[in-house]
Amino acid sequence: MPSQTFAGSLSSPKVDVVVDTGNPLLNHTVDGFLKIGTVAVAKTLVEETYHVVQRGSLSKHNLEDALKKMCKEGAYWGAVAGLYVGMEYGVERVRGTRDWKNAMVAGAVTGAIVSAVTNSKGDKVVMDAITGGAVATGVEIIKYLT
Amino acid sequence: MPSQTFAGSLSSPKVDVVVDTGNPLLNHTVDGFLKIGTVAVAKTLVEETYHVVQRGSLSKHNLEDALKKMCKEGAYWGAVAGLYVGMEYGVERVRGTRDWKNAMVAGAVTGAIVSAVTNSKGDKVVMDAITGGAVATGVEIIKYLT
Repeated sequence: MPSQTFAGSLSSPKVDVVVDTGNPLLNHTVDGFLKIGTVAVAKTLVEETYHVVQRGSLSKHNLEDALKKMCKEGAYWGAVAGLYVGMEYGVERVRGTRDWKNAMVAGAVTGAIVSAVTNSKGDKVVMDAITGGAVATGVEIIKYLT
Repeated sequence: MPSQTFAGSLSSPKVDVVVDTGNPLLNHTVDGFLKIGTVAVAKTLVEETYHVVQRGSLSKHNLEDALKKMCKEGAYWGAVAGLYVGMEYGVERVRGTRDWKNAMVAGAVTGAIVSAVTNSKGDKVVMDAITGGAVATGVEIIKYLT
């Protein structure tokens, strides 16, 4: 009986593109965009590979589709992460301290902006801002737990 | 013209409940559950307060509803976080090193378990595992950027 196994190895990607724009806030944003964009591209690549293995066939159309998805997801995750990292850096500069409240403010602002750009409805934006702030605060706390 | 403003102050909550179960893996899990559960409860509290301010009225029914939501969201976020933190600790013990791959594995396993518990469909579980791994990797990278 032919059986299908899904095995793969993933070597640590070493991505270290550093773009110096001369502005520290912009540098943080670009850094976040590139690094998290890479993670999203890798994620989409794994997803598409899984689909191909499951179907057992690969066509030119699938490849084009996968490439398009990689660009789209990479740009989206990268933009959100860049916004967040830049925002946290900005809040830290303004407040002059580093604590979980920076993460909360940056998360809330990022949530509000992303929500406003994609949905643009009054109440939904406020809810997404609250969720963004809570998620960022949670992640900040998990940092110290792990 | 009467105007309505939404102002509030949030003092840093100091939650430091430490439950020692005698087992380090379980301790991590309980810690994650309590701390992230608290964040989710606070988030729901802020959301409900915003709704009350917007409506301008508060009834017993609203309060009961808010309390129910706080319990539900707190338990859900807490369970996911506890699972993740415990999993990362376990992976670290097994692998013997600390790097972003622990986060990826822990995120993938957590994503798969949460997905299996809530949806339980073959393909969706794999996709959620991939997304969980990618999100955890992204967060791990953001740690070093901020």
